[in-house]
Amino acid sequence: MAKESYTGRINRKLMKKLRIVEVAAGREKADLVLKNAAYVNVFSSQICRADIAVAEGLIVGMGTYSGVQEVDVSGKIVLPGFLDAHIHLESAMVSPGEFARAVLPHGTTTVVADPHEIANVMGADGIEYMLQATEDLPVDVRFMLPSCVPATPMDESGAVLDYRTIDSFYDHPRVQGLAEMMNYPGVIGADPQVIEKIVAAQAHHKKIDGHAPDLLGNDLNAYIAAGVYSDHECHDAADAVAKLERGQFIMIREGTAARNLAALMPLMTPQYAERCMFCCDDKHPNDLLEKGHIDYNIREAIRLGADPILTIRVACHHAARYYLLNNRGAIAPGYLADFVVIDNFQDFNIQQVFKKGVEMYDGTSVRDFPAPVIDPYLVRRAHDTFHLAHLTAEDFAERRPRGIIGMVPGEIVTTDQGYSDHIDPEWDILKIAVVERHKNTRHIGIGYLQGYGLKRGAVATSVSHDSHNIIVVGAGEEDMAAAVNRVAENRGGIVVMEGGRVQGEVALPVAGLMSDGTLEEVNSALEAAKDAAFALGVSREIDPFMTLSFMSLPVIPTLRLTTRGVIDVDKQQYV
Amino acid sequence: MAKESYTGRINRKLMKKLRIVEVAAGREKADLVLKNAAYVNVFSSQICRADIAVAEGLIVGMGTYSGVQEVDVSGKIVLPGFLDAHIHLESAMVSPGEFARAVLPHGTTTVVADPHEIANVMGADGIEYMLQATEDLPVDVRFMLPSCVPATPMDESGAVLDYRTIDSFYDHPRVQGLAEMMNYPGVIGADPQVIEKIVAAQAHHKKIDGHAPDLLGNDLNAYIAAGVYSDHECHDAADAVAKLERGQFIMIREGTAARNLAALMPLMTPQYAERCMFCCDDKHPNDLLEKGHIDYNIREAIRLGADPILTIRVACHHAARYYLLNNRGAIAPGYLADFVVIDNFQDFNIQQVFKKGVEMYDGTSVRDFPAPVIDPYLVRRAHDTFHLAHLTAEDFAERRPRGIIGMVPGEIVTTDQGYSDHIDPEWDILKIAVVERHKNTRHIGIGYLQGYGLKRGAVATSVSHDSHNIIVVGAGEEDMAAAVNRVAENRGGIVVMEGGRVQGEVALPVAGLMSDGTLEEVNSALEAAKDAAFALGVSREIDPFMTLSFMSLPVIPTLRLTTRGVIDVDKQQYV
Repeated sequence: MAKESYTGRINRKLMKKLRIVEVAAGREKADLVLKNAAYVNVFSSQICRADIAVAEGLIVGMGTYSGVQEVDVSGKIVLPGFLDAHIHLESAMVSPGEFARAVLPHGTTTVVADPHEIANVMGADGIEYMLQATEDLPVDVRFMLPSCVPATPMDESGAVLDYRTIDSFYDHPRVQGLAEMMNYPGVIGADPQVIEKIVAAQAHHKKIDGHAPDLLGNDLNAYIAAGVYSDHECHDAADAVAKLERGQFIMIREGTAARNLAALMPLMTPQYAERCMFCCDDKHPNDLLEKGHIDYNIREAIRLGADPILTIRVACHHAARYYLLNNRGAIAPGYLADFVVIDNFQDFNIQQVFKKGVEMYDGTSVRDFPAPVIDPYLVRRAHDTFHLAHLTAEDFAERRPRGIIGMVPGEIVTTDQGYSDHIDPEWDILKIAVVERHKNTRHIGIGYLQGYGLKRGAVATSVSHDSHNIIVVGAGEEDMAAAVNRVAENRGGIVVMEGGRVQGEVALPVAGLMSDGTLEEVNSALEAAKDAAFALGVSREIDPFMTLSFMSLPVIPTLRLTTRGVIDVDKQQYV
Repeated sequence: MAKESYTGRINRKLMKKLRIVEVAAGREKADLVLKNAAYVNVFSSQICRADIAVAEGLIVGMGTYSGVQEVDVSGKIVLPGFLDAHIHLESAMVSPGEFARAVLPHGTTTVVADPHEIANVMGADGIEYMLQATEDLPVDVRFMLPSCVPATPMDESGAVLDYRTIDSFYDHPRVQGLAEMMNYPGVIGADPQVIEKIVAAQAHHKKIDGHAPDLLGNDLNAYIAAGVYSDHECHDAADAVAKLERGQFIMIREGTAARNLAALMPLMTPQYAERCMFCCDDKHPNDLLEKGHIDYNIREAIRLGADPILTIRVACHHAARYYLLNNRGAIAPGYLADFVVIDNFQDFNIQQVFKKGVEMYDGTSVRDFPAPVIDPYLVRRAHDTFHLAHLTAEDFAERRPRGIIGMVPGEIVTTDQGYSDHIDPEWDILKIAVVERHKNTRHIGIGYLQGYGLKRGAVATSVSHDSHNIIVVGAGEEDMAAAVNRVAENRGGIVVMEGGRVQGEVALPVAGLMSDGTLEEVNSALEAAKDAAFALGVSREIDPFMTLSFMSLPVIPTLRLTTRGVIDVDKQQYV
């Protein structure tokens, strides 16, 4: 494609704009009119009534209009499309296109994604992969660039991203800024390598999202003064208000792994809601299929007593303004024709979803859309991220005393359970290992795990935060080796192994994180694998894979396991 | 100066940011601490209490801090610096530096200027002149690029600005967008030359301000859908709410020529205020000196019953967010240390004003600051904008019947008073002329004026909206010629002439619009000239120069005069 000149670009946009004005002024027919709409006006916090006219994918006016296509929405309520302000798409374990197909029936028309997981595997190529995998999807996917790859220097990830590595992405029209700055100790401690990422994002006039649970006082001042504009880690209202009062925008998170909405309901009030938006952070297949997406957050907020119109503003308009996505999040002339049609606020059944004026969900099914074309090099690279030698039981056989990581049901924090030098399923002492898989370093960190409950066999997964090496837990070293080998053979995913036989598995061949299949296929394999894990004794109080995947994240207390061994996170040293 | 590399730029900003973090975290002393501050928190709409620490010109934290300089503000209230969302600086008739000196004691720390007047005289060079004349002033002057030069094709101005002429200015860091799109009939009528200006501003991701009094219904939809994001012409609340509901931001205007605050008080409520900000549009010397600036709007709003904290949000935060000036308009870490210290909300006496952490006003006087350096070519060009031949009485002597423009006391609309073919001061029929002065075309439009009251002599001014030719009104042609010649000799300004002798005058040699002197000097000359005009019989119900200056603006009903003759604005034809 020849590069377009500036004049050419202006002329092209002018053509479209002239038509918009003609339709808005009533001189030409609209492409689509939602007749007799009752719609939420996020500017006046009222329900307004009018026809809504659409042309060229944009809302052009509210009044009396006629259109080529007319849809009578009498008796229903029309809302702007919903935004998720912060999500790691990889958690859904499917392609972004498949994610879009899953969330459209839930009214989501824009998400702001942090490709942190794939970037830990593939570096800048991972970011590029996600940009290409989301081009022209009917859910607009915007990106924040991963700020902490690897999560800590103790981690051994597939890539190290400094500010220069990600810098060119700021020119991409769908990149909004720098994603959650998890390394808040680095910010507060004025680590130049951390701060320069913020400085570079600001130099591009971009947003910087935060991640700073329980940060207070002057440390919080330092973190915000450095240039971090939001937080999605608030788990109580006092923490959230302290951040909001200092100028941060608060993302009220309600996802699969963390659920903060109930605790943050005091923010869903006129005093604070203007600075709040919704996010999910992580959404796992089962949760997406059963509960939905931002619509679930809306329903919950209303059920917990929030004003419905205020809730809609939080779900649409505030995230759009925060991210300077100023053409969405409202029903007004010039805004994207992204609509959610519901029956009423109490039942909140979504009956239709429009993206840029096209009905993408009719109450029954999602309209087909083309899969984005991804550069063949990137496709091959994404499917070839496992670089490790074939393992045997010998690789896990050592008998030196190692720390025991204690799992806590329903939490991702762990406890320090002392030491062990052998597996003892009777006492629920299992061997756990993290196998480096990016660069064939043959690093294998070994420790012990209590609280998982496995009685025989092994469970392995390449979804292991944040560096996504292969984490494996077993009642025997043979099955541990077999499980890891099977994960590698599948080019990623989850394997439940017993006696050398696969009991359940989910192949995630895209960077070891995502499937090439449908959400339903992944969910069904995942649920079957969970059942297999439970059958081998895994405690039913624990999500066998999700909880396991956090055992390697060396930023959450108390003990964690990396490719180099068991770490005391509080002391930041190996035990 | 060598061009800075990107790495060099990041390193430079990094140094500053590291220091900010050190101070915020409490490891280094602040440059300035406002001790024991009670400050307005625009995020939580509360008064908060803490020390406010400043480093590198930015607020770094609120808490307990010590600083190299400490100022105890116990018992006072600290506010963010005020913003004027839309002003034509030229109306103050002084240089931008002198304007800054005048408004600092009133708490203004940022203004968004539309250099529409000087652009009508000097075109793109006028915009550049204002950019240079405002560089590094202690009031941050941001610009919107004039959208309608000339105001209409019937006008004969010094320049014609199409989208290409102004396009390169969008790269300037202090240009925020496209200024008031006065040609709303052109927008609604889908005139490509008008719409392409909007399209180009959007292509640069810039704001587009509006100007559309009383626009309603689908025409209003068309205007907004075209991409016009604000309006400052609302003179009743219903009009304002109609625009706000469709997504426009409302600038509540209270200036010299137009005063809408009282009528728009229904917007100063939680339901609407989030989308509102203050502006003055025009501020004349006397008004600036006697009433103040945005502080006057705040006092008036509070006096009329608005909540003080909500009023402060309107005066600071909302304009900053609208214009994406996201580092100001609030007291929070990372924001500019722009403070206004007042005694209390009722008396609202401004006791100190800080700009970027420097006390610029101490309650008595304004701290000196260097005048911006302006390119010598531009200085010469700005002082050489009168290109017309010496005139004699003969040039005004013609006796053909011409339309009589009727002045209305206290208004800028006019009435159609029929025709005359001679001056008759007994019946208050004066001759009025507009003399083209940009390009020596020798065009002189002649008509008659009723309601001005002049009994003898002549009054001439080069401040004549919007094209700023010389407008002259007289009881005799000799004095008319002498007054115009004197204006040209002064390279612009206002002259009151009788019997060939100057009775009063204000020299405005910068583009014929601004003085090189102080505001006090200009005001004193202006008041003396007004007295001289009154002494010659001008009606005391009329501002002798301001009202006259609107007689040439061919967009306001009913009759106007251009260099080509009397126009019926409603019919858009010569009479």
